[in-house]
This record gives sequence, structure tokens and C-alpha cells, in this order.
Amino acid sequence: MNDMSNKWIGARTIRPDGADKVTGRATYSADNTMPGMIWGKVLRSPHAHAVIRSIDTSKAEALPGVKAVVTAKDFVDFPIDKSVMLGIQDMRWMARNILAKEKALFHGHPVAAVAAISEEVAAEACKLIEVDYEVLPHVIEIEDAIKPDAPILHDWVRHEGKPSNIAGTMVLKAGDIEKGFAEADIVVERTFTTRPVHQGYIEPHACTVSHAADGRVTIWSSSQGQFMVRAMTSLLTGIPQSNIRAIPAEIGGGFGAKTIVYLEPVAVMLSKKSGRPVKIVMTRDEVQRATGPAPGSLMTVKIGAKKDGTLVAAQGTFYLQAGGLPGSPLRGPVGCSFAAYAIPNVLSTGYDVVSNRSKVAAYRAPGAPHGAFATESVLDEIAEKLGLDPLDMRVRNSAKPGDKAIYGATFGDVTFVETMDAIRKHPHYKAPLDKNPRPGVKRGRGVASGFWYNAGGESSVQVNITEDGNVVVTTGHPDVGGSRASIANVVAELMGIDHSRVNVIIGDTQTIGFSNLTGGSRVTFASAMVATASCEKVVGQLKERAAKIWKIDAEAVKWEDGMALPAGDNAGKFPPLSLKELAAKANEMGGPIGAQVQLNTTGADPGYATHCVDVEVDVDLGIIRVLRYTAAQDVGRALHPSYVEGQIQGGVVQGIGWALSEEYLYDKQGRVDNASFLDYRMPVCSDVPMIEAVVVEIPNSKHPQGVRGVGEAPIVPPLAAIANAVHDALGKRFYALPMSPPKVTARMDEA
Amino acid sequence: MNDMSNKWIGARTIRPDGADKVTGRATYSADNTMPGMIWGKVLRSPHAHAVIRSIDTSKAEALPGVKAVVTAKDFVDFPIDKSVMLGIQDMRWMARNILAKEKALFHGHPVAAVAAISEEVAAEACKLIEVDYEVLPHVIEIEDAIKPDAPILHDWVRHEGKPSNIAGTMVLKAGDIEKGFAEADIVVERTFTTRPVHQGYIEPHACTVSHAADGRVTIWSSSQGQFMVRAMTSLLTGIPQSNIRAIPAEIGGGFGAKTIVYLEPVAVMLSKKSGRPVKIVMTRDEVQRATGPAPGSLMTVKIGAKKDGTLVAAQGTFYLQAGGLPGSPLRGPVGCSFAAYAIPNVLSTGYDVVSNRSKVAAYRAPGAPHGAFATESVLDEIAEKLGLDPLDMRVRNSAKPGDKAIYGATFGDVTFVETMDAIRKHPHYKAPLDKNPRPGVKRGRGVASGFWYNAGGESSVQVNITEDGNVVVTTGHPDVGGSRASIANVVAELMGIDHSRVNVIIGDTQTIGFSNLTGGSRVTFASAMVATASCEKVVGQLKERAAKIWKIDAEAVKWEDGMALPAGDNAGKFPPLSLKELAAKANEMGGPIGAQVQLNTTGADPGYATHCVDVEVDVDLGIIRVLRYTAAQDVGRALHPSYVEGQIQGGVVQGIGWALSEEYLYDKQGRVDNASFLDYRMPVCSDVPMIEAVVVEIPNSKHPQGVRGVGEAPIVPPLAAIANAVHDALGKRFYALPMSPPKVTARMDEA
Repeated sequence: MNDMSNKWIGARTIRPDGADKVTGRATYSADNTMPGMIWGKVLRSPHAHAVIRSIDTSKAEALPGVKAVVTAKDFVDFPIDKSVMLGIQDMRWMARNILAKEKALFHGHPVAAVAAISEEVAAEACKLIEVDYEVLPHVIEIEDAIKPDAPILHDWVRHEGKPSNIAGTMVLKAGDIEKGFAEADIVVERTFTTRPVHQGYIEPHACTVSHAADGRVTIWSSSQGQFMVRAMTSLLTGIPQSNIRAIPAEIGGGFGAKTIVYLEPVAVMLSKKSGRPVKIVMTRDEVQRATGPAPGSLMTVKIGAKKDGTLVAAQGTFYLQAGGLPGSPLRGPVGCSFAAYAIPNVLSTGYDVVSNRSKVAAYRAPGAPHGAFATESVLDEIAEKLGLDPLDMRVRNSAKPGDKAIYGATFGDVTFVETMDAIRKHPHYKAPLDKNPRPGVKRGRGVASGFWYNAGGESSVQVNITEDGNVVVTTGHPDVGGSRASIANVVAELMGIDHSRVNVIIGDTQTIGFSNLTGGSRVTFASAMVATASCEKVVGQLKERAAKIWKIDAEAVKWEDGMALPAGDNAGKFPPLSLKELAAKANEMGGPIGAQVQLNTTGADPGYATHCVDVEVDVDLGIIRVLRYTAAQDVGRALHPSYVEGQIQGGVVQGIGWALSEEYLYDKQGRVDNASFLDYRMPVCSDVPMIEAVVVEIPNSKHPQGVRGVGEAPIVPPLAAIANAVHDALGKRFYALPMSPPKVTARMDEA
Repeated sequence: MNDMSNKWIGARTIRPDGADKVTGRATYSADNTMPGMIWGKVLRSPHAHAVIRSIDTSKAEALPGVKAVVTAKDFVDFPIDKSVMLGIQDMRWMARNILAKEKALFHGHPVAAVAAISEEVAAEACKLIEVDYEVLPHVIEIEDAIKPDAPILHDWVRHEGKPSNIAGTMVLKAGDIEKGFAEADIVVERTFTTRPVHQGYIEPHACTVSHAADGRVTIWSSSQGQFMVRAMTSLLTGIPQSNIRAIPAEIGGGFGAKTIVYLEPVAVMLSKKSGRPVKIVMTRDEVQRATGPAPGSLMTVKIGAKKDGTLVAAQGTFYLQAGGLPGSPLRGPVGCSFAAYAIPNVLSTGYDVVSNRSKVAAYRAPGAPHGAFATESVLDEIAEKLGLDPLDMRVRNSAKPGDKAIYGATFGDVTFVETMDAIRKHPHYKAPLDKNPRPGVKRGRGVASGFWYNAGGESSVQVNITEDGNVVVTTGHPDVGGSRASIANVVAELMGIDHSRVNVIIGDTQTIGFSNLTGGSRVTFASAMVATASCEKVVGQLKERAAKIWKIDAEAVKWEDGMALPAGDNAGKFPPLSLKELAAKANEMGGPIGAQVQLNTTGADPGYATHCVDVEVDVDLGIIRVLRYTAAQDVGRALHPSYVEGQIQGGVVQGIGWALSEEYLYDKQGRVDNASFLDYRMPVCSDVPMIEAVVVEIPNSKHPQGVRGVGEAPIVPPLAAIANAVHDALGKRFYALPMSPPKVTARMDEA
């Protein structure tokens, strides 16, 4: 399987979703309509923090054209004292996020929703809903939220026995941290902050929902998992999963944030109450104000090393911002920050901090970029102080196969060093850099590495042979990053047929077996694995049928180039039977040919990435520009290299945004002041150079094609790599992101 | 499995499609729309018979708003001399039916099609298409078409070496027909005619089609088989099946006629040419004028019997009307007319006759009602002449298990007698009938029997367990007559759970394995069989998982009432594990639970039916009214009795229409003169009494639940039963249908 001479695996085939997308034919979430459909609108809290004393919807209900109004009391009750988990999501918080219950916890928090004959009438009705708020003092930043006198968001949250905004703690340990630091020749300890950043998907959240008179529900929406939509909607509304058909629309970006629901359960209850199909589409303002960004962070990392660069101790304290309800991704920084290094003594602690911001959602390698920013900055400083090459020092400390990871796993293959080598050998790393190209401009180069867990999990695939001898594949995952293209390559290869004869389709919850989220860098890994198992079953059926025709044993048949051939003693005795010929005989030989395989896949080894970046700083204006960026990553095997490169490039660009420009601005009332793509500054094409992706392929021995997850690791190194490059340029280290012009000029003024 | 103590099998559960249908939420063919969609319209021949010399579409194409025009030359060419079969359909004729090629063969025959920004513009453009016709003499009726000097429709058709309108012949034989008649004490020979009758589905043909820029096609349409739509569209357009996704809409009746395509390939080519999604919806006028009726017939049946009623010889000659292109269902009358009787000497001959009518399509037990009308009328006459009870005489001659059917099969179970016994024992058959209730009114009672092959064939079913422990079933068949309800009953029974926990869905061609047509009385038979196999696999998986938890052998686990229980030596050792509990553990125990099974099913034994009817004839007005109707049929096992009864009732009502009122009226130019539901007289509720269905259940030993096909046999006996009842009332036998008031009064005037 690790044979690189494949025809389709590794080919840059035309993407199956491409034509529809560039011609505007692709159906995204908001593109669906239904006869008799009405429109939903969400009423949102005007306060950052307020007790909801009561909600009077009577005037809204009386407005002509209004068909239904819902509030939290129309949904399943999840009492605070009993956790109900769905994957990593606690339904207590999910329920209160889709519609506020006891309290409004951030400006823009949904409080009620209306369905009416038009969006305008629904918006008008929202204004008629009378909410009796008791406005409370609010808190936005981590530093403020963890102060002893901070306004407390949830009276049931206790930390160290006292009311607190620290809603959770995670600790990982190895060795003896005190002893480790005592042995160190050099110890560097720094405190870092990063800002919450939005996933910035182009497509806003939207859905169309039909709740029929018999209780059967159909949901059209884009998400990172139609099964997640079904399961969460089921839990929040009390409708059994078997009665909910969640149909995945094309998705205009998710990056982790579409692994939870906002609108679907609300639309279901509006549809149930009104007896009409209901459509809700968020505005960009609503998306920016009230859907999950990645958390901001406050982190202290302390690392001790010997003079030769051997790391002996590492300690990290990571406060992550959860937003108004608990649930920040602590396992990101706590588990990943030191994972790829063989450090004998580690103490890694995370705190989940609530404050009056929108509840965070997953964002590519959740929490790992934060931790890597801190760790890889400190490592850079240590290397500098010890006079070592920063990559040499990382290579020296890389974890090895058989090492026990801090988060519990034992490493199989570790291909961290190979990504560093790829950068060390790359012309970029060796190219001279004129650090002072012209007055007022400084240039610098930085490197950083990154680690991400990657995941396996449940996937289902059906492979069916059409009567004309072609292949249709159904998968259960929304295609966010090219899974249809990758699976088409795998199936064409395994079936031995031309790529154009394979069509990959995404099934809905009611037509394919359970398939977990598109996330965790898992989908290509897992669905290629089940697709392979399905193809093997189908090829087995084809061989059996050929064997029957030839009256020989099925074991004496081989499958090559889309044909059954007699093998061994029978070789050459019968003319080959093609897929088309066998498909044409399917009926008379027992029926249709096809197989469905569903598995909880395992063997998704972690992802390793090393990046190198050159930056240019305009010292007067404080503008940092990325001049050149090279990202090396072990992807195991690139089933479709263009998509692999695209994932790497996309992750890097987002990382550049985190590093240089993205942040929320809040006013004094705790309201987001820049809730638009104009004012919330994500990198656009003109902001970035062509990102060079160096695709390292060391096949994952636990995967039939050698695949390793790709999508998340690329966002882990950029923050630190850029900060290290800026330090190289200016001789100044930045500990707070984004390194935006005001911060850079302020820092230059300090000097 | 033949245990009648089942909880769900045989229960009258609420139909899964009911709420959506009665609330108007169900999505039929014409209900789909797409952004950017344009409208198609078909230009139809104004002549019953004409050579198409040329078609000039330039003026139509130049009309503002017109986006595409297609004619036959835009489609795959099927030369006349090479047959390409898809099931029983010859694509040479199918191609020429969807768009005329060399000739227009009937008034309303499609000649070209236009797609434009509105239906109005498309209709206007149709008028601008210039077709150069050479009008030819036309022929409508069989009697005329088989005359030596008849206008010949196809110069490549030869019969007995000469140009002819007889496009095909089918002959079945047993014994020595001459010798047989020589042995008979009595021989009756009569000639019968029936008229073409439309299937009369409420929903007109319609489709919405998207041909994307990369050649991928999506079709939304109602049909009796999304896989048929895919396969025919593929053959007619040259697009591989793997690139065509045919999505089944709810269907508003088909009765056989939606087993072929009219619009889909046309819409695909219009969409391809225009680059826009295209929708076409037929008017009722188009449906009546140009979609398949059942054939009319001209039949002579001659039967010889001994004095005791033993049948010794039977001869049938069946001319069926094919319409403008070959392909009438000869195997209906030729194979079925004498099949259920053990007659030693038989000669059964069918002729496929083309004439300038719309091409026929399947209609419930295609061709069998015609043959039964003739045969069962002659048998009635023989019984009368011999002074025998007509049912006694049929019982005496019934085929027995092991007898060889004239069409080649060897009978397994034969349950013909049981249906006759059910009628003989029924109060209706014994009830006194006042034959002269009042002046000018006569009453009579008639009986007749019927036989239909029934079919098995390919079906695929997926059974998936949801994470919350309920069941979703996907089948590959449009649900015309309650297959979702029946399969839900079977799955609830086999999984041992409440019916409300099962949801049955119909998959599209790209999300379920190949499944043949909803037709041939096959769907409940076949899909219950594959659903059973799927459930067995799923229960097997559940037992294995319970066994793993208990650390015992999977064989030591039984599945009862939706729970795994330790059995045998382990009985009672562990508390049972419910489906919900096992579903909740699915992830940690290997992944999702589910199975897909696809089979070419066999063992669908024939259907047997016996009907009894009382009629009242208004002698002066010629109006025949059905007073009471009882229909007995062996259904093997009624999975959902309400649907079984509904199928029987529906078949009878359609038979009443054939017998009493339905016919096409043609003008002298060969144009249908009554192409509307107002003028084409189908029975409505007020025309018929409550039909009593006597459901005989003798389980089919070849089916896991004992199912025998239901849908077609009920339409076989009514024509003869009613004619026999009319004879009983009037003492006059009718040999020509329909027995409409003008014919009845004319016949009364004869006397």
C-alpha cells in the first residue's frame, strides 16, 4: 500500500465539488427553500450580563404575520447539576447557548426567537418581546475575570471552594518539576496572551427546517457533521434521532466552529409550533457577535535546559477564555504544548475561564496554537541564549517512538524530526536574508514547530456498483477540505478504474451509517480506511462472481486494472471479466454489487509540522508583512496533494491572522465593536505571499494508504514562527498577539 | 415466521407518509425548485402520422428568453436494426417515444422541446419551431391496423414476410390443441374487445433537473423507480450512471405507467445546453394524450370441456395495441389467461399491433385483465351451459402444486382454490339477490378469477441504529402502495421494539444499492426479504457486542423484545442489554451498528384472486351500477392489512372503470377528443360501493414473513366478473368493453 507508483492515489484530480462551486450551482445552507416556508429571527440580549427575570412574548405573538415564538422554556430542560455529554459538548451549556435561560451572558446572546411570514415581520416582532432584565456588572478579559472581586457569571461555579469564574481545570504531569528545574543550566519563563479570533467562515450559519405534523423532522443545513446536527437537535428538542433527517448542505467553511448547533433546534421548535417550514439565516453581525471564536489566552511557560540544549523541565499554565458558558479546549495547550519533546519533567495546567463573551467553539487544533506560541517562543529564546540553531535544538529534544506522551498515549512513529529536516534542507532556510533592506525596514526569519493529536473515530462508507459498471460512493461526512476528492482517488485506485468513473456523494443521516464529525483532522484518514474496507468487500464480491462464471475458486481470481483475471494455475485460461461485464451480470448472479462498512477507526498518529517564515517590519508604521513562508508537515500520504497543500496553506494564513491582525474590540458596555469583515481584520490575499507547502510523506503504518491527518497541525506553528521572525528582525520579542501596528509602534517607542 | 402472534407484522400502524400527505407537506415531482431554474415545454405533433422531413429551430432559439432547444438529434442514436434492452424496454422505441425521430406516430408525440425563462416563453417558442411534416394516412384501431391495406407505421416491421403493423408475436403451447378440442363435449368460442384505458394517476409527469458544468446530473422526479430513471436517462443521453443522481419525489400514483421516462432525459439535455436547471411539468392534456395507457385488445378465446366441467382444451388469440411504437405486454394475456387452470391442451398466441396512438405503458398486471375478461367470460358461459356452479367448475380445474405452468414455471403452492372457497363461504355469495327489484331495473351476480405472475428481483435495504438506540431503514424503492408502512412493521417486529422507533426512508440512486422497479407486485415481497436479512445482520452485531460485554459466546445470546439476553447455561446470569444501551456503547465497541443487504430475490409465487359482484342495470338508461363487490385474494401474509385491502380495493375500482366507462374517443384526424378527467370517465367515489377485501393468508413458504405480491392480481377478475353479472341480470353477454350506457341501450334495443 505504500507503493508510490499508484495511478490515482496522489494524483491532482479535478475536484468533484469544483464545477458546482465556481458556477454558483452548489447549494449552501441558505439556498434551500420549501413551499409554505416562513422566516425565523433571533432576539438577542442588548446586555453583556443580565438576569432574565421574565419574558413576555404576548405582544409579539399578536403581531399579524407572526406564527410562533419560542424561548428557552420550549426546549428540553438541562438542570445545572447534571452533566449530559455529547462528545466533548456538555448539553447544559449548549442548551443555554442556543437560548439564554437564567441569564444573558454576553451581548448578542439569543433570548427568544420568532417565526413570521417575512424576516421583516419577524424582526419587528422581536422588538415587541418584553424581557425584564436585571443588568449586572460584566467582565470581558481573563485577567479581570480571575480577579478575586470579579463579577461572577455562574453562582454554581466553584474554584478552590470559592465562587469563581474558573469553571474547570486540567493538569498533566510527568517526572518531578522542581527537581527538573533544579537541574537546568538555563531557565526562561515568560507570560503570553492571545486574543479570541473568529473562525471567519464565509458562509453564515443558516438552516431550513420542516417539522411535519407526525413529528418527523427534516433539517437542511451546513455543518461539520449532519449526525452531530441530528444528535444535538434530538437532545435539545426531545425528538428521537430516528425522526430527524439532517441533510448536509455544501459548507462554506467551518474550521471547527460548525461542530455545534446554534439555529437548528430553534428552527425545529418554531416549525413545530407554527406547523410551517422555517428558515433562519444569520447576518454577519450575528455570526461575529454570537458564534464561537477560538478562545483568548493568558499563559505562562517556563522551560529549563542544559547548556547543550537538552530540555529538562517544562511548566505551563494556560488560562483559556470559554466565553459566557464553560468549555474551552484545555486539552489543546495542556496536552500539545510539550508533547512532541522528550522532556522528563513536565507540569501542564489549564484553566477554563468564563467571561461575558460569546461561547467559544472549536477552531483548528483547538488550543494548540496558543500553547505553541508560548512554548516555541520560549524555546527560541533558549536557543538564542545558548547560541544554538533553533531547529538543531528541537531535533535534539524530539520525542522518539515508544516514548510516553504527556497526555497518556505511547508514541508509535514520530516524524517530528523529518519535518524539521525538510525545513533545514529547504532553500528558504538557507537563503540569505538582508535584514536591513532599506531605512525604516527590518527583516527577520523565524521557525517554529507544532504538534496535534489527530483523531480516528466513526466513519461509514457505502460503495455501490452501478448497472453500467461505474462506482458510486456515499460517505457520511460533510466535505470541508476535499474528502470527496481524496476518496474518489482511493476508490479509483482500489477498483482499478478511471477516476471519471467514480462519483462520491455525501449521504444524509437517514441514508448512511453513523459518521462522526468532519474535524480533528480525521475525515480523510477515517473515510479512506472504511472506503478501503468497502472496496475490498466489493472486489471480493466481484472475484466470487468471476469465479462462479469460470467455475474456479474465488481465491484463484485476482483483481487488476478494473478486471477479474484468473490467477495461479488458471492464469490465462479465461479472458478477463471487466467491472462493466460483471456489473451487467449482477442480476443473474445474485443481485446488486455493493457494500457498506462502518468502523470506529483507530491508528491516527499525531501530526507534526515545522514552519519557517521571513517577515518585514515597517518600523515607523508598525506594519508587519510576511515575505516568505514555508510549511513542512508529515501527512503520511497525500491522497490528493492539492488539497493537502490547500489545507496547509489555509492553516498558515489563518495563523498569520492570529499573529498579526485579528482581535475583537469591545466597548465599555461589553459589546463587540467590530462585528464585520470590514472591521475585524482577517488576512486577505493581498496580505500574504504564496505559502509553500512542503509535503513530507512518511506513510502511517496503521492506515491502508498511510494517511495521517492534515488539517489542524498547520495552524499550530505560525504564531510562534512569526513572533520569532519579528524578534529576529527587531531584537524585540512580542508576548501579546496580535502584533498589530499600534502594538508594534508602541513597542518601538518604548525603546 | 408464520406465527400470527406477532405484535407489529399485521398491525394497522399509522402510515409513515400520511401526515405529510394530508397536510400538503409531501414533496411531489412538481414541487421542487432550484435557484436559476428555467422551464421546459414540449412541442408535440399535430398529426397522428407524419414523416418529419426537417425541423428548423432557429426562430425559436432567437426568441428572447429562450435558453435551449432540443430535438431527437441531441440524444444517443439507437439505430432501428439493433435492439438495446433495459429490462422489458427496448431503448430504440423509448428513444423515439421521448422525442420523435423519423416520424411522428401519434397526435401529441413529442417532436422538440424548449427551455426558457418561463413556461409562457417556452410555449411561445414551441410555436416558432418549424417542422416540415409529410402527413400520412393514420390508423387507430387494431381491426383496421391488421387489415392488409392498412397504413403501415414502420417500414422495417415485417410479419409473415410482409410489411405489417404486427410488430411481434408470442406463442405458448401445451399438449395437442386439435386433439383436445376433439375430446371436448362442449366448445365455446367468442371474440372480445377492450379499449385502451389510462392509468389515471392524479400526479402528472414532472421533473426538475440540474446538469452541472462538470457533467454531474441531479434529477428530482417521481417515478416507480429512481434507478430506472437513472438507467434510462443514462442510456438516452450517454451520461454514465455514476454521474446521475436520481432523487425520488413522493409519487401521486403510477400503476405501472411510471416505470418509464418521458421528461427526464429531455430536461437533462435542455439543462446541459442551457447551463441552467430545468423544470418540466406536463399538463393533464399532455398526460392523457401522450403517456401510456394500457393497450386495447382484440381477442378470441375458445375453450373445450367435458360434460362434468373438466376443461380439455383452450385456445386464445390476443391482439394487443402497442401504440405508435412496438412493445405491448403480450406475456399478460398469453401467459396468464389459462395459467391457473390445469388444461392439458393449450395454444395461446399474442400479437403486438402498432397503430397511431400513444405508446402503451404498463398498467397493473399488464395484459392480464384483458385475457381474463375473455377466458372468464367463456368459462362462465360453459358453466351455464353445463348447469354447473361457476366456482365449482373452476375449483375442479384448478392447477395443483407441481403442475407445469404454460409459461414454463412449475407451480409451488397453488392457492387458487382457497380464494374460490373464500368467496363460496362468504355471505355475499350466499345472499339472496332480487333480480327484478323494480320496473326497468335488473340485477345480477357474477364471479370471475384471476392470475398474476408476481415478481421478485433486486432490492437493497440499509438498517442503521441511531446513537439513541432507534432504527432508521433506507430502501431503494419509491413507495407507491405502502412499502414504508410494511417495512416499518417488519423491522419493528424483528428488532423487537416499538413501531414508533422505526423510521423508513427512501434513498436516492447514489445513497442506496440498486433496487429494481416498484412494480410487478414485488416491492413488499422483495424489500421485506432484504430488510429481514439486514435486521438479522444487525441483531447479529448486537448479540456479538452483548456477548463481548458478558464475555460469553455470541451463540449464547438471544435477542428478544429489543434486548440482548443471555441464554442457555448463561440464562439469567446477566441483566439484559437493551438496544438503547448497546447503541450507547457502539463507539467503544467497534463503531456504528448497521447493515446493508442487496439481493436479487426469488420465490415470489403467483397471485390468485376470485371476485364476486352484484350489479344493477337501468335497462332504459343503460346505466350499470355496481351494488356490492367482494374480492378474495391470497396475499400470503398481510404485513399491513389496511394497505393490502387498499391495494385490492384500488385494483377493483380501476377494473370497474375498464368494464363500465373508460375509453378514449378519437376524432377523424386521429386526435384524442376527451383528454381530460372531465371527459375521460374514471370511476369516482360516488360510482362505487365499499369494496370488501377478503384477505386470504396462506403464507408463502419461500418468504421470511410469508408474503405474496398483492398489487396486481386485484385488477384481473373485475372485467369478467362484472360482464358475468351483467349477463346474469340481462341474459345478455357483453363481448366489448366498456359496457357504457350507449352500448347497453344499443344492446337492449337489439333484443
